[in-house]
Amino acid sequence: EYYGGCRLTKPPQIRSTRTVAKSRLFEIEEVELHFANGHRAHYERLGGSAGGVLVVPVTEEGMILLVREYAVGVERYELGFVKGRVEIGESPQFAAAREMQEEIGFDAGELRLLATVSLTPAYSNYKTFIFLAMGLYESSLEGDEPEELETVPWALSDLERLRRRDDFTDARCLLATYLAHQALANEDG
Amino acid sequence: EYYGGCRLTKPPQIRSTRTVAKSRLFEIEEVELHFANGHRAHYERLGGSAGGVLVVPVTEEGMILLVREYAVGVERYELGFVKGRVEIGESPQFAAAREMQEEIGFDAGELRLLATVSLTPAYSNYKTFIFLAMGLYESSLEGDEPEELETVPWALSDLERLRRRDDFTDARCLLATYLAHQALANEDG
Repeated sequence: EYYGGCRLTKPPQIRSTRTVAKSRLFEIEEVELHFANGHRAHYERLGGSAGGVLVVPVTEEGMILLVREYAVGVERYELGFVKGRVEIGESPQFAAAREMQEEIGFDAGELRLLATVSLTPAYSNYKTFIFLAMGLYESSLEGDEPEELETVPWALSDLERLRRRDDFTDARCLLATYLAHQALANEDG
Repeated sequence: EYYGGCRLTKPPQIRSTRTVAKSRLFEIEEVELHFANGHRAHYERLGGSAGGVLVVPVTEEGMILLVREYAVGVERYELGFVKGRVEIGESPQFAAAREMQEEIGFDAGELRLLATVSLTPAYSNYKTFIFLAMGLYESSLEGDEPEELETVPWALSDLERLRRRDDFTDARCLLATYLAHQALANEDG
């Protein structure tokens, strides 16, 4: 039997889950799976957060506003988009507006959801909500960053050069340049 | 002072790192940072693996070959591209060829690196090498999957419908559809 071009496979059963390691930010779970063919396996996955937002702010002059921030995972300053966690009780839209005000000092008249994406779905259920922000106006909130973030304006007409930079590497940020370009091209057309 | 459009910021110093939690697959490190402005902070990051590969195999008939596999992070079957870890001692190219043979039963006459991307650079230094594979020919290796993977061919002319599916959500896979399209369009042009 097929559905949407794929076989109707009987999914494995989750027989048990247990926390095997935990820190301030991360929780690692071990999951016992029984597959329909009789195989059994133990997998590890990261538990925890509700998700995050990533925002592409576009000005009326055709610029996108990037943020430059130290990223300890890769031990260098990275260019990227406004991003942050969705706190408990917040909608993704609310979190997007809050993070913009904290990181670049702008709020948006319009926030449009471009995509909801996962990171390594085999290991995590973490979701990122990617927004396009338009109708920008100045509005600031105090953030919790240890040093002031630098805002770097970049011309929408020059995305290809941005994509080739070796300090613009987050898969979600690269994807967001294509999504934003596509959304704005459809609007003009 | 500016360099490449960005301020020349003095990067924070890493004063210490220690492992705070560890499991079979994951290792969580705590890093103590001293920023140039005097602020001090403790961050957590994921240590571990050398990196992974993601491969977009393209047939002469203009189809890309997807893989459908159970993803325990999101607890459903996901469509995606051939992917896997780069094992110790392997080059990314070697890992890409091996994973293709294990997951879809093909090897490639040409493997072209489209991009090297990070996932959440604030929390991890994990790299994914994204390849385009052409000149496919049958060649199989035994994988370690608990159930047979399904190969799903998809027309390159219909990528927009793939991007809208709710079981095709990995940011790297979505990005790879744009990168592959762009690389093949440049080749034709």
